[in-house]
Amino acid sequence: MAGAESSQGYAHPYIPEDLSLPGFVPGFLSMSTIVGVYGGSSLLVVSLMWILSGRVAKLAKLDRLLMCWWVFTGLTHMVLEGYFVFSPQFYQKTTPHYLAEVWKEYSKGDSRYVGRDAGVVSVEGITAVLEGPACLLVTYAIAKRKSYSHVLQVAISLGQLYGTAVYFITSFLEGDNFAVDSFYYYAYYIFANSFWVWIPTLIVIRSWSKICAAFTAQEEKRSRAKKR
Amino acid sequence: MAGAESSQGYAHPYIPEDLSLPGFVPGFLSMSTIVGVYGGSSLLVVSLMWILSGRVAKLAKLDRLLMCWWVFTGLTHMVLEGYFVFSPQFYQKTTPHYLAEVWKEYSKGDSRYVGRDAGVVSVEGITAVLEGPACLLVTYAIAKRKSYSHVLQVAISLGQLYGTAVYFITSFLEGDNFAVDSFYYYAYYIFANSFWVWIPTLIVIRSWSKICAAFTAQEEKRSRAKKR
Repeated sequence: MAGAESSQGYAHPYIPEDLSLPGFVPGFLSMSTIVGVYGGSSLLVVSLMWILSGRVAKLAKLDRLLMCWWVFTGLTHMVLEGYFVFSPQFYQKTTPHYLAEVWKEYSKGDSRYVGRDAGVVSVEGITAVLEGPACLLVTYAIAKRKSYSHVLQVAISLGQLYGTAVYFITSFLEGDNFAVDSFYYYAYYIFANSFWVWIPTLIVIRSWSKICAAFTAQEEKRSRAKKR
Repeated sequence: MAGAESSQGYAHPYIPEDLSLPGFVPGFLSMSTIVGVYGGSSLLVVSLMWILSGRVAKLAKLDRLLMCWWVFTGLTHMVLEGYFVFSPQFYQKTTPHYLAEVWKEYSKGDSRYVGRDAGVVSVEGITAVLEGPACLLVTYAIAKRKSYSHVLQVAISLGQLYGTAVYFITSFLEGDNFAVDSFYYYAYYIFANSFWVWIPTLIVIRSWSKICAAFTAQEEKRSRAKKR
């Protein structure tokens, strides 16, 4: 029945099949177009940030790389996830709208998006509204060597990890049966999300140890001052 | 029908009324007993920590107060919330079991507990398994003035705030209709949870500024070293 027109509109391709999506309209764009536009615009943003950050004096390559990550993840949170949070009827779009197409496509890997699961919407809301702008603030903090740079990186990265944990645990508790097939399950649900597991983990480890080092240095200074 | 025995067992007092709880057995302990035991044992733990922390040399009163908070919230996470996470059938207990009684009683303010809502179980799971032990680690870190003390306090407090945010937002999205009446709504759902909003917020502000101060001191030291 997938894709067939019914009296209610079109049948949807998602799992579970009994998911009710009144007024559903199938996607217009192909997977390669959707992924290509996301990949291409991300590459553009990352390249621009790499060039811009190169003009900041004495910035280490790793910090420039981190600025690229933060602007990429920040814009993903604000634009893609922000659209999802505030567009509950995206699946009814009758004309090709790129952001609606993204979520029509991604829902093949996790139908809780199109089904508007409360847990998914909550996590995406926090991510889009709070973490997205904070990611852009971090790129500024790194460039300007602000004293809050590392604690902000720990805060956002732990937030991303917390959100991803809630995302995966709720799915597991609800039966882990929201993907059209194992291709979409592994490509969208597992692979695409995995970047928001290992990258934040590495950033937490690095910034956490930088914070500890700053306190250790402060403590040594105090001990020396006392000995004088 | 509340409390009446049916062929399926007992009718439950929770909202929504059509919530299915096969084998439900009403609570045995009164609200005052449940709240009294929690309050009394918390007071005992906090008093013990206050006395113990007084034996640590040169620990500020505020740090001792924080150690009291961390041991209280850590044990609440591990014992109360830990029991909930790993006891899906707590509402079927036929004998008075204090921890089961706590959750039978709290569910009057939020039936998603007795109804085993996936979002609630996910947040409670992360809180009980990761944050609980981390809270106990913080009491040690404060006493021993570890360099990771403040970043760990920021990490756990933000985790508590994230969890509370998901907890309230999911309820709002699902209709915010899980309390028996407005007394339980305000006493359990709003008032009891409010401590995990304002206390973590104050701790984040304090520890965040301590971290920034440590980096500022480190930066000043480096600038002076360059000038020499």
